[in-house]
Amino acid sequence: MNAAVVKGKLTGVGTGPGDPELLTLKAVRAIREADVIAFFCKKGSGGNGRAIVEAHVRPGTAELPLVYPVTVETQKDEADYRGPIADFFDRSAEEIAAQLDAGKNVTVLSEGDPLFYGSYMHLHVRLADRYQAEVVAGVTAMSGCWSMTGLPLVQGDDILSVLPGTLSEEKLVERLSDTDGAVIMKVGRNLPKIRRALAAVGKLSGSLYVERGTMANGAAVRLEERDESPAPYFSLVLVPGWKARPVQAVAPREETVAVLEVGK
Amino acid sequence: MNAAVVKGKLTGVGTGPGDPELLTLKAVRAIREADVIAFFCKKGSGGNGRAIVEAHVRPGTAELPLVYPVTVETQKDEADYRGPIADFFDRSAEEIAAQLDAGKNVTVLSEGDPLFYGSYMHLHVRLADRYQAEVVAGVTAMSGCWSMTGLPLVQGDDILSVLPGTLSEEKLVERLSDTDGAVIMKVGRNLPKIRRALAAVGKLSGSLYVERGTMANGAAVRLEERDESPAPYFSLVLVPGWKARPVQAVAPREETVAVLEVGK
Repeated sequence: MNAAVVKGKLTGVGTGPGDPELLTLKAVRAIREADVIAFFCKKGSGGNGRAIVEAHVRPGTAELPLVYPVTVETQKDEADYRGPIADFFDRSAEEIAAQLDAGKNVTVLSEGDPLFYGSYMHLHVRLADRYQAEVVAGVTAMSGCWSMTGLPLVQGDDILSVLPGTLSEEKLVERLSDTDGAVIMKVGRNLPKIRRALAAVGKLSGSLYVERGTMANGAAVRLEERDESPAPYFSLVLVPGWKARPVQAVAPREETVAVLEVGK
Repeated sequence: MNAAVVKGKLTGVGTGPGDPELLTLKAVRAIREADVIAFFCKKGSGGNGRAIVEAHVRPGTAELPLVYPVTVETQKDEADYRGPIADFFDRSAEEIAAQLDAGKNVTVLSEGDPLFYGSYMHLHVRLADRYQAEVVAGVTAMSGCWSMTGLPLVQGDDILSVLPGTLSEEKLVERLSDTDGAVIMKVGRNLPKIRRALAAVGKLSGSLYVERGTMANGAAVRLEERDESPAPYFSLVLVPGWKARPVQAVAPREETVAVLEVGK
Protein backbone atom coordinates (compact mmCIF):
# COMPACT_ATOMS: atom_id res chain seq x y z
CA MET A 1 0.00 0.00 0.00
CA ASN A 2 1.25 3.45 -0.95
CA ALA A 3 1.28 5.63 2.16
CA ALA A 4 0.69 8.75 0.03
CA VAL A 5 -2.74 7.58 -1.13
CA VAL A 6 -5.65 9.26 0.67
CA LYS A 7 -7.90 6.50 1.95
CA GLY A 8 -11.35 6.16 0.44
CA LYS A 9 -14.64 6.62 2.27
CA LEU A 10 -17.04 3.84 3.20
CA THR A 11 -20.75 4.58 2.75
CA GLY A 12 -23.45 2.11 3.80
CA VAL A 13 -26.59 2.91 1.84
CA GLY A 14 -30.13 1.72 2.51
CA THR A 15 -31.82 0.79 -0.77
CA GLY A 16 -35.30 0.68 0.77
CA PRO A 17 -37.84 -2.15 0.61
CA GLY A 18 -37.93 -2.86 -3.11
CA ASP A 19 -39.61 -0.11 -5.13
CA PRO A 20 -36.69 1.73 -6.81
CA GLU A 21 -38.59 5.00 -6.27
CA LEU A 22 -38.20 4.51 -2.50
CA LEU A 23 -34.48 5.22 -2.78
CA THR A 24 -33.55 8.46 -1.04
CA LEU A 25 -31.89 11.34 -2.87
CA LYS A 26 -28.85 10.76 -0.65
CA ALA A 27 -28.68 7.09 -1.61
CA VAL A 28 -28.81 8.01 -5.29
CA ARG A 29 -25.95 10.46 -4.82
CA ALA A 30 -23.84 7.91 -2.92
CA ILE A 31 -24.40 5.38 -5.71
CA ARG A 32 -23.56 7.87 -8.47
CA GLU A 33 -20.42 9.08 -6.70
CA ALA A 34 -19.08 5.61 -5.82
CA ASP A 35 -15.85 4.28 -7.28
CA VAL A 36 -16.87 0.79 -6.16
CA ILE A 37 -20.32 -0.59 -5.40
CA ALA A 38 -20.36 -3.59 -3.06
CA PHE A 39 -23.44 -5.70 -2.33
CA PHE A 40 -24.38 -8.96 -0.67
CA CYS A 41 -25.92 -11.68 -2.81
CA LYS A 42 -26.53 -15.38 -2.97
CA LYS A 43 -24.52 -17.56 -5.30
CA GLY A 44 -26.09 -17.37 -8.75
CA SER A 45 -28.13 -14.26 -7.92
CA GLY A 46 -27.37 -10.63 -8.70
CA GLY A 47 -28.67 -9.42 -5.34
CA ASN A 48 -31.92 -7.59 -4.59
CA GLY A 49 -30.16 -4.41 -3.49
CA ARG A 50 -28.18 -4.23 -6.72
CA ALA A 51 -31.36 -4.66 -8.79
CA ILE A 52 -33.08 -1.80 -6.94
CA VAL A 53 -30.32 0.71 -7.76
CA GLU A 54 -29.79 -0.36 -11.40
CA ALA A 55 -30.90 2.97 -12.92
CA HIS A 56 -28.37 4.99 -10.91
CA VAL A 57 -25.07 3.13 -11.36
CA ARG A 58 -22.64 5.09 -13.53
CA PRO A 59 -21.23 3.09 -16.43
CA GLY A 60 -17.72 1.97 -15.55
CA THR A 61 -18.34 1.78 -11.78
CA ALA A 62 -16.47 -1.20 -10.33
CA GLU A 63 -18.67 -3.80 -8.64
CA LEU A 64 -17.79 -6.02 -5.71
CA PRO A 65 -20.33 -8.79 -5.08
CA LEU A 66 -20.07 -10.33 -1.61
CA VAL A 67 -21.40 -13.85 -2.10
CA TYR A 68 -22.87 -15.44 1.03
CA PRO A 69 -21.37 -18.83 1.82
CA VAL A 70 -23.74 -21.78 1.40
CA THR A 71 -23.88 -22.07 5.19
CA VAL A 72 -26.20 -19.05 5.37
CA GLU A 73 -28.87 -21.08 3.63
CA THR A 74 -28.37 -24.43 5.26
CA GLN A 75 -27.18 -23.86 8.80
CA LYS A 76 -28.93 -20.66 9.86
CA ASP A 77 -30.10 -22.01 13.20
CA GLU A 78 -27.11 -24.24 13.87
CA ALA A 79 -24.48 -23.65 16.51
CA ASP A 80 -21.72 -24.07 13.94
CA TYR A 81 -23.12 -21.26 11.78
CA ARG A 82 -21.34 -18.50 13.68
CA GLY A 83 -17.80 -19.46 12.68
CA PRO A 84 -18.25 -19.62 8.90
CA ILE A 85 -20.39 -16.51 8.72
CA ALA A 86 -17.99 -14.50 10.88
CA ASP A 87 -15.16 -15.61 8.57
CA PHE A 88 -17.23 -14.47 5.60
CA PHE A 89 -17.78 -11.02 7.10
CA ASP A 90 -14.06 -10.82 7.99
CA ARG A 91 -13.08 -11.64 4.39
CA SER A 92 -15.69 -9.24 2.96
CA ALA A 93 -14.47 -6.41 5.19
CA GLU A 94 -10.90 -7.00 4.06
CA GLU A 95 -11.91 -6.96 0.39
CA ILE A 96 -13.52 -3.57 0.97
CA ALA A 97 -10.57 -2.37 3.06
CA ALA A 98 -8.25 -3.12 0.13
CA GLN A 99 -10.34 -0.81 -2.06
CA LEU A 100 -10.44 1.92 0.60
CA ASP A 101 -6.68 1.65 1.07
CA ALA A 102 -6.30 2.19 -2.68
CA GLY A 103 -8.19 5.47 -2.32
CA LYS A 104 -11.47 4.23 -3.74
CA ASN A 105 -14.80 5.39 -2.29
CA VAL A 106 -16.89 2.27 -1.63
CA THR A 107 -20.68 2.33 -1.39
CA VAL A 108 -22.17 -0.80 0.18
CA LEU A 109 -25.80 -1.49 -0.68
CA SER A 110 -28.11 -2.70 2.07
CA GLU A 111 -31.74 -3.63 1.49
CA GLY A 112 -34.07 -1.66 3.74
CA ASP A 113 -32.09 0.29 6.36
CA PRO A 114 -28.39 -0.55 6.85
CA LEU A 115 -28.38 -0.81 10.66
CA PHE A 116 -31.77 -2.52 11.06
CA TYR A 117 -31.38 -6.31 10.67
CA GLY A 118 -28.99 -5.81 7.75
CA SER A 119 -25.72 -7.48 6.79
CA TYR A 120 -24.00 -4.13 6.29
CA MET A 121 -23.57 -3.62 10.03
CA HIS A 122 -21.14 -6.55 10.14
CA LEU A 123 -18.89 -4.61 7.78
CA HIS A 124 -19.45 -1.32 9.59
CA VAL A 125 -18.21 -2.61 12.95
CA ARG A 126 -15.13 -4.09 11.27
CA LEU A 127 -14.21 -0.94 9.29
CA ALA A 128 -15.64 2.22 10.90
CA ASP A 129 -12.72 2.56 13.34
CA ARG A 130 -10.19 2.52 10.50
CA TYR A 131 -11.86 4.53 7.73
CA GLN A 132 -14.18 7.48 7.26
CA ALA A 133 -17.63 5.86 7.33
CA GLU A 134 -21.16 7.18 6.80
CA VAL A 135 -24.51 5.41 7.00
CA VAL A 136 -27.38 6.59 4.79
CA ALA A 137 -30.68 5.59 6.41
CA GLY A 138 -33.22 3.79 4.24
CA VAL A 139 -36.93 2.97 4.26
CA THR A 140 -37.33 -0.34 6.13
CA ALA A 141 -39.15 -3.35 4.70
CA MET A 142 -41.77 -3.02 7.44
CA SER A 143 -42.54 0.60 6.50
CA GLY A 144 -42.85 -0.49 2.88
CA CYS A 145 -45.28 -3.24 3.85
CA TRP A 146 -47.64 -1.21 6.02
CA SER A 147 -47.60 1.70 3.55
CA MET A 148 -48.49 -0.61 0.67
CA THR A 149 -51.51 -1.88 2.59
CA GLY A 150 -52.50 1.50 4.07
CA LEU A 151 -52.57 -0.05 7.53
CA PRO A 152 -51.89 2.45 10.34
CA LEU A 153 -49.64 0.52 12.71
CA VAL A 154 -48.87 2.48 15.87
CA GLN A 155 -49.89 5.85 17.26
CA GLY A 156 -49.56 7.97 20.38
CA ASP A 157 -48.23 5.95 23.32
CA ASP A 158 -48.47 2.58 21.57
CA ILE A 159 -45.71 0.03 22.11
CA LEU A 160 -44.37 -1.62 18.95
CA SER A 161 -42.61 -4.99 19.12
CA VAL A 162 -40.55 -6.31 16.23
CA LEU A 163 -40.38 -10.07 16.70
CA PRO A 164 -38.68 -12.91 14.82
CA GLY A 165 -41.05 -15.68 13.75
CA THR A 166 -38.44 -18.11 15.03
CA LEU A 167 -39.59 -17.54 18.65
CA SER A 168 -41.38 -20.48 20.28
CA GLU A 169 -45.17 -20.47 20.13
CA GLU A 170 -45.32 -19.90 23.89
CA LYS A 171 -42.96 -16.92 23.62
CA LEU A 172 -44.87 -15.48 20.66
CA VAL A 173 -48.14 -15.68 22.61
CA GLU A 174 -46.53 -13.93 25.58
CA ARG A 175 -45.03 -11.17 23.41
CA LEU A 176 -48.12 -10.60 21.29
CA SER A 177 -50.43 -10.38 24.31
CA ASP A 178 -48.18 -7.76 25.86
CA THR A 179 -47.77 -5.24 23.04
CA ASP A 180 -49.89 -2.83 21.02
CA GLY A 181 -48.57 -3.11 17.47
CA ALA A 182 -46.25 -5.85 16.25
CA VAL A 183 -44.24 -6.75 13.19
CA ILE A 184 -43.28 -10.40 12.81
CA MET A 185 -40.27 -11.06 10.60
CA LYS A 186 -38.79 -14.33 9.32
CA VAL A 187 -42.23 -15.74 8.60
CA GLY A 188 -41.22 -18.56 6.21
CA ARG A 189 -42.03 -21.97 7.66
CA ASN A 190 -43.14 -20.32 10.92
CA LEU A 191 -46.44 -19.18 9.39
CA PRO A 192 -48.76 -21.79 11.03
CA LYS A 193 -47.19 -21.17 14.45
CA ILE A 194 -47.53 -17.38 14.06
CA ARG A 195 -51.16 -17.76 13.09
CA ARG A 196 -51.89 -19.96 16.12
CA ALA A 197 -50.18 -17.48 18.44
CA LEU A 198 -52.15 -14.52 17.08
CA ALA A 199 -55.42 -16.46 17.34
CA ALA A 200 -54.60 -17.32 20.96
CA VAL A 201 -54.35 -13.64 21.89
CA GLY A 202 -57.35 -12.53 19.79
CA LYS A 203 -55.31 -10.55 17.27
CA LEU A 204 -55.55 -12.77 14.20
CA SER A 205 -58.48 -11.06 12.52
CA GLY A 206 -56.80 -7.65 12.31
CA SER A 207 -53.45 -8.97 11.12
CA LEU A 208 -52.12 -8.78 7.57
CA TYR A 209 -49.67 -10.96 5.70
CA VAL A 210 -47.46 -9.10 3.20
CA GLU A 211 -44.85 -10.51 0.87
CA ARG A 212 -42.34 -8.54 -1.21
CA GLY A 213 -43.81 -5.26 0.04
CA THR A 214 -43.49 -2.42 -2.53
CA MET A 215 -41.85 -4.76 -5.08
CA ALA A 216 -43.46 -5.19 -8.50
CA ASN A 217 -44.81 -8.61 -7.48
CA GLY A 218 -45.74 -7.59 -3.94
CA ALA A 219 -48.92 -8.95 -2.38
CA ALA A 220 -50.94 -8.50 0.79
CA VAL A 221 -53.79 -10.52 2.26
CA ARG A 222 -55.54 -10.89 5.59
CA LEU A 223 -53.50 -13.43 7.55
CA GLU A 224 -56.69 -15.43 8.22
CA GLU A 225 -57.06 -15.93 4.48
CA ARG A 226 -53.46 -16.85 3.69
CA ASP A 227 -53.06 -20.52 2.73
CA GLU A 228 -50.66 -22.82 4.59
CA SER A 229 -47.95 -22.94 1.93
CA PRO A 230 -44.50 -21.81 3.15
CA ALA A 231 -44.00 -18.04 3.03
CA PRO A 232 -41.03 -16.56 1.19
CA TYR A 233 -38.18 -15.04 3.15
CA PHE A 234 -39.25 -11.49 2.28
CA SER A 235 -42.61 -11.66 4.00
CA LEU A 236 -43.92 -10.03 7.16
CA VAL A 237 -46.95 -10.19 9.41
CA LEU A 238 -48.34 -6.84 10.56
CA VAL A 239 -50.37 -6.57 13.76
CA PRO A 240 -51.95 -3.13 14.15
CA GLY A 241 -51.89 -1.39 17.52
CA TRP A 242 -53.46 2.03 17.99
CA LYS A 243 -55.62 1.87 21.13
CA ALA A 244 -56.99 5.37 20.56
CA ARG A 245 -58.18 4.62 17.07
CA PRO A 246 -61.43 6.46 16.35
CA VAL A 247 -64.55 4.35 15.85
CA GLN A 248 -65.10 5.70 12.36
CA ALA A 249 -61.81 4.12 11.27
CA VAL A 250 -62.24 1.99 8.18
CA ALA A 251 -58.72 0.94 7.21
CA PRO A 252 -57.63 -1.41 5.85
CA ARG A 253 -59.91 -1.08 2.85
CA GLU A 254 -61.22 -4.27 1.34
CA GLU A 255 -59.45 -3.64 -1.94
CA THR A 256 -56.07 -3.02 -0.39
CA VAL A 257 -56.00 -6.28 1.51
CA ALA A 258 -56.92 -8.42 -1.44
CA VAL A 259 -53.88 -9.87 -3.19
CA LEU A 260 -52.78 -6.95 -5.28
CA GLU A 261 -50.31 -5.99 -7.93
CA VAL A 262 -48.21 -3.07 -6.85
CA GLY A 263 -47.19 -0.84 -9.70
CA LYS A 264 -44.30 1.55 -9.62
CA MET B 1 -69.99 19.90 -5.86
CA ASN B 2 -70.12 19.23 -9.58
CA ALA B 3 -70.80 15.51 -10.14
CA ALA B 4 -68.88 15.62 -13.42
CA VAL B 5 -65.58 16.45 -11.70
CA VAL B 6 -63.22 13.48 -11.34
CA LYS B 7 -62.21 13.33 -7.70
CA GLY B 8 -58.60 14.03 -6.81
CA LYS B 9 -56.16 11.57 -5.27
CA LEU B 10 -54.89 11.66 -1.69
CA THR B 11 -51.20 10.89 -1.17
CA GLY B 12 -49.64 10.65 2.28
CA VAL B 13 -45.91 11.24 1.94
CA GLY B 14 -43.17 10.52 4.46
CA THR B 15 -40.67 13.38 4.50
CA GLY B 16 -38.06 11.40 6.46
CA PRO B 17 -36.31 12.41 9.69
CA GLY B 18 -35.06 15.87 8.78
CA ASP B 19 -32.22 15.84 6.26
CA PRO B 20 -33.88 16.95 2.97
CA GLU B 21 -31.66 14.47 1.12
CA LEU B 22 -33.46 11.63 2.93
CA LEU B 23 -36.60 12.31 0.91
CA THR B 24 -37.36 9.41 -1.44
CA LEU B 25 -37.62 9.87 -5.20
CA LYS B 26 -41.29 8.93 -4.88
CA ALA B 27 -41.89 11.61 -2.26
CA VAL B 28 -40.26 14.23 -4.48
CA ARG B 29 -42.51 13.21 -7.37
CA ALA B 30 -45.65 13.33 -5.21
CA ILE B 31 -44.70 16.82 -4.02
CA ARG B 32 -43.95 18.08 -7.53
CA GLU B 33 -47.17 16.66 -8.95
CA ALA B 34 -49.44 17.93 -6.16
CA ASP B 35 -52.15 20.51 -6.79
CA VAL B 36 -52.37 21.09 -3.04
CA ILE B 37 -49.79 20.41 -0.33
CA ALA B 38 -51.22 19.92 3.16
CA PHE B 39 -49.14 19.71 6.34
CA PHE B 40 -49.56 19.75 10.08
CA CYS B 41 -47.97 22.58 12.03
CA LYS B 42 -48.15 24.41 15.32
CA LYS B 43 -49.61 27.89 15.48
CA GLY B 44 -46.92 30.36 14.47
CA SER B 45 -44.69 27.68 12.93
CA GLY B 46 -44.31 26.69 9.29
CA GLY B 47 -44.07 22.99 10.08
CA ASN B 48 -40.99 20.74 10.01
CA GLY B 49 -42.30 18.61 7.17
CA ARG B 50 -42.93 21.67 4.99
CA ALA B 51 -39.39 22.95 5.64
CA ILE B 52 -37.87 19.59 4.61
CA VAL B 53 -39.55 19.62 1.17
CA GLU B 54 -38.98 23.31 0.40
CA ALA B 55 -36.72 22.70 -2.63
CA HIS B 56 -39.31 20.54 -4.40
CA VAL B 57 -42.55 22.55 -4.19
CA ARG B 58 -43.56 23.91 -7.60
CA PRO B 59 -44.25 27.67 -7.60
CA GLY B 60 -48.00 28.18 -7.57
CA THR B 61 -48.81 25.00 -5.65
CA ALA B 62 -51.67 25.65 -3.22
CA GLU B 63 -50.82 25.08 0.45
CA LEU B 64 -53.14 23.90 3.19
CA PRO B 65 -51.63 24.23 6.69
CA LEU B 66 -53.44 22.13 9.31
CA VAL B 67 -52.79 24.02 12.54
CA TYR B 68 -52.92 21.88 15.69
CA PRO B 69 -55.31 23.23 18.31
CA VAL B 70 -53.65 24.52 21.48
CA THR B 71 -54.97 21.45 23.31
CA VAL B 72 -52.29 19.29 21.68
CA GLU B 73 -49.67 21.17 23.65
CA THR B 74 -51.41 21.63 26.95
CA GLN B 75 -53.65 18.62 27.48
CA LYS B 76 -51.73 15.76 25.88
CA ASP B 77 -52.18 13.39 28.80
CA GLU B 78 -55.63 14.58 29.87
CA ALA B 79 -58.83 12.61 29.48
CA ASP B 80 -60.51 15.58 27.80
CA TYR B 81 -57.84 15.70 25.08
CA ARG B 82 -59.53 13.11 22.87
CA GLY B 83 -62.58 15.16 21.96
CA PRO B 84 -60.85 18.35 20.76
CA ILE B 85 -58.16 16.48 18.84
CA ALA B 86 -60.69 14.16 17.18
CA ASP B 87 -62.67 17.26 16.16
CA PHE B 88 -59.48 18.75 14.73
CA PHE B 89 -58.78 15.64 12.65
CA ASP B 90 -62.43 15.58 11.51
CA ARG B 91 -62.22 19.21 10.37
CA SER B 92 -58.82 18.68 8.71
CA ALA B 93 -60.13 15.64 6.82
CA GLU B 94 -63.10 17.65 5.57
CA GLU B 95 -60.86 20.50 4.39
CA ILE B 96 -58.88 17.98 2.37
CA ALA B 97 -62.05 16.25 1.16
CA ALA B 98 -63.27 19.57 -0.24
CA GLN B 99 -60.10 19.82 -2.34
CA LEU B 100 -60.39 16.18 -3.50
CA ASP B 101 -64.03 16.73 -4.41
CA ALA B 102 -62.94 19.70 -6.54
CA GLY B 103 -60.64 17.36 -8.49
CA LYS B 104 -57.42 18.48 -6.84
CA ASN B 105 -54.66 15.98 -6.04
CA VAL B 106 -53.64 16.53 -2.42
CA THR B 107 -50.26 15.50 -1.00
CA VAL B 108 -50.13 15.41 2.79
CA LEU B 109 -46.67 15.72 4.32
CA SER B 110 -45.80 13.51 7.28
CA GLU B 111 -42.48 13.72 9.12
CA GLY B 112 -40.75 10.34 9.21
CA ASP B 113 -43.05 7.59 7.93
CA PRO B 114 -46.79 8.38 7.53
CA LEU B 115 -48.21 5.30 9.30
CA PHE B 116 -45.61 5.11 12.10
CA TYR B 117 -46.63 7.39 14.98
CA GLY B 118 -47.68 10.11 12.53
CA SER B 119 -50.67 12.45 12.37
CA TYR B 120 -51.33 11.56 8.73
CA MET B 121 -52.95 8.26 9.68
CA HIS B 122 -55.83 10.14 11.34
CA LEU B 123 -56.63 11.63 7.94
CA HIS B 124 -56.06 8.36 6.10
CA VAL B 125 -58.65 6.44 8.13
CA ARG B 126 -61.17 9.23 7.59
CA LEU B 127 -60.64 9.51 3.80
CA ALA B 128 -59.26 6.28 2.33
CA ASP B 129 -62.69 4.69 2.00
CA ARG B 130 -64.00 7.62 -0.04
CA TYR B 131 -61.06 8.60 -2.26
CA GLN B 132 -58.17 7.03 -4.11
CA ALA B 133 -55.40 7.05 -1.50
CA GLU B 134 -51.72 6.10 -1.56
CA VAL B 135 -49.11 6.09 1.20
CA VAL B 136 -45.46 6.76 0.32
CA ALA B 137 -43.24 5.20 3.00
CA GLY B 138 -40.54 7.37 4.53
CA VAL B 139 -37.35 6.99 6.55
CA THR B 140 -38.34 6.98 10.23
CA ALA B 141 -36.82 9.29 12.83
CA MET B 142 -35.34 6.28 14.61
CA SER B 143 -33.53 5.10 11.45
CA GLY B 144 -32.19 8.60 10.99
CA CYS B 145 -30.91 8.65 14.57
CA TRP B 146 -29.09 5.32 14.59
CA SER B 147 -27.64 5.95 11.13
CA MET B 148 -26.32 9.33 12.19
CA THR B 149 -24.49 7.72 15.14
CA GLY B 150 -23.40 4.58 13.25
CA LEU B 151 -24.91 2.43 15.99
CA PRO B 152 -26.00 -1.04 14.80
CA LEU B 153 -29.30 -1.59 16.58
CA VAL B 154 -30.71 -5.07 15.97
CA GLN B 155 -29.56 -8.13 14.06
CA GLY B 156 -30.52 -11.74 13.42
CA ASP B 157 -33.20 -12.92 15.84
CA ASP B 158 -33.08 -9.82 18.05
CA ILE B 159 -36.32 -8.41 19.43
CA LEU B 160 -36.77 -4.66 19.06
CA SER B 161 -39.14 -2.74 21.33
CA VAL B 162 -40.28 0.79 20.54
CA LEU B 163 -41.39 2.30 23.83
CA PRO B 164 -42.87 5.65 24.85
CA GLY B 165 -40.91 7.43 27.56
CA THR B 166 -44.25 8.12 29.22
CA LEU B 167 -44.38 4.55 30.62
CA SER B 168 -43.95 4.27 34.40
CA GLU B 169 -40.45 3.58 35.68
CA GLU B 170 -41.52 0.10 36.78
CA LYS B 171 -42.94 -0.66 33.34
CA LEU B 172 -39.85 0.71 31.59
CA VAL B 173 -37.61 -1.53 33.72
CA GLU B 174 -39.77 -4.54 32.88
CA ARG B 175 -39.77 -3.79 29.14
CA LEU B 176 -36.09 -2.94 28.90
CA SER B 177 -35.02 -6.08 30.77
CA ASP B 178 -37.06 -8.23 28.40
CA THR B 179 -35.88 -7.01 24.97
CA ASP B 180 -32.72 -6.96 22.90
CA GLY B 181 -32.72 -3.55 21.20
CA ALA B 182 -34.99 -0.67 22.18
CA VAL B 183 -35.92 2.78 20.98
CA ILE B 184 -37.43 5.11 23.55
CA MET B 185 -39.52 7.94 22.13
CA LYS B 186 -41.10 10.95 23.83
CA VAL B 187 -38.03 11.53 25.95
CA GLY B 188 -38.69 15.15 26.98
CA ARG B 189 -39.20 15.46 30.72
CA ASN B 190 -38.98 11.68 31.08
CA LEU B 191 -35.20 11.69 30.66
CA PRO B 192 -34.23 11.13 34.35
CA LYS B 193 -36.74 8.27 34.65
CA ILE B 194 -35.49 6.64 31.44
CA ARG B 195 -31.92 6.88 32.65
CA ARG B 196 -32.79 5.26 36.00
CA ALA B 197 -34.65 2.44 34.26
CA LEU B 198 -31.74 1.70 31.91
CA ALA B 199 -29.29 1.75 34.80
CA ALA B 200 -31.49 -0.68 36.71
CA VAL B 201 -31.27 -3.26 33.90
CA GLY B 202 -27.57 -2.68 33.20
CA LYS B 203 -28.11 -1.11 29.77
CA LEU B 204 -27.27 2.52 30.46
CA SER B 205 -23.62 2.47 29.40
CA GLY B 206 -24.36 1.31 25.84
CA SER B 207 -27.27 3.68 25.26
CA LEU B 208 -27.18 6.84 23.19
CA TYR B 209 -29.22 10.02 23.38
CA VAL B 210 -29.94 11.66 20.01
CA GLU B 211 -31.77 14.89 19.31
CA ARG B 212 -32.91 16.18 15.92
CA GLY B 213 -31.31 13.19 14.20
CA THR B 214 -30.10 14.01 10.63
CA MET B 215 -31.18 17.65 10.98
CA ALA B 216 -28.60 20.41 10.49
CA ASN B 217 -28.43 20.97 14.27
CA GLY B 218 -28.64 17.26 15.19
CA ALA B 219 -26.58 15.98 18.13
CA ALA B 220 -25.78 12.66 19.76
CA VAL B 221 -24.14 11.83 23.06
CA ARG B 222 -23.80 8.84 25.38
CA LEU B 223 -26.89 8.88 27.56
CA GLU B 224 -24.66 8.63 30.64
CA GLU B 225 -23.11 11.95 29.68
CA ARG B 226 -26.29 13.85 28.86
CA ASP B 227 -27.09 16.57 31.40
CA GLU B 228 -30.43 16.65 33.25
CA SER B 229 -31.98 19.53 31.30
CA PRO B 230 -35.31 18.66 29.63
CA ALA B 231 -34.92 16.99 26.23
CA PRO B 232 -36.65 18.44 23.17
CA TYR B 233 -39.62 16.63 21.66
CA PHE B 234 -37.58 15.37 18.72
CA SER B 235 -35.17 13.29 20.77
CA LEU B 236 -34.77 9.55 21.15
CA VAL B 237 -32.84 7.10 23.28
CA LEU B 238 -31.28 4.17 21.42
CA VAL B 239 -30.50 0.92 23.24
CA PRO B 240 -28.47 -1.47 21.07
CA GLY B 241 -29.38 -5.16 20.95
CA TRP B 242 -27.37 -7.58 18.84
CA LYS B 243 -26.59 -10.59 21.02
CA ALA B 244 -24.37 -12.14 18.34
CA ARG B 245 -22.22 -9.05 18.00
CA PRO B 246 -18.63 -10.06 17.33
CA VAL B 247 -16.06 -9.23 20.01
CA GLN B 248 -14.03 -7.09 17.61
CA ALA B 249 -16.99 -4.71 17.31
CA VAL B 250 -15.96 -1.13 17.90
CA ALA B 251 -19.01 0.96 17.10
CA PRO B 252 -20.00 3.54 18.09
CA ARG B 253 -16.79 5.38 17.44
CA GLU B 254 -15.71 7.94 20.01
CA GLU B 255 -16.02 10.80 17.56
CA THR B 256 -19.53 9.91 16.45
CA VAL B 257 -20.97 9.94 19.94
CA ALA B 258 -19.56 13.31 20.86
CA VAL B 259 -21.98 16.15 20.26
CA LEU B 260 -21.60 16.65 16.55
CA GLU B 261 -22.68 18.89 13.75
CA VAL B 262 -24.39 16.94 11.00
CA GLY B 263 -23.82 18.39 7.58
CA LYS B 264 -26.03 17.78 4.62
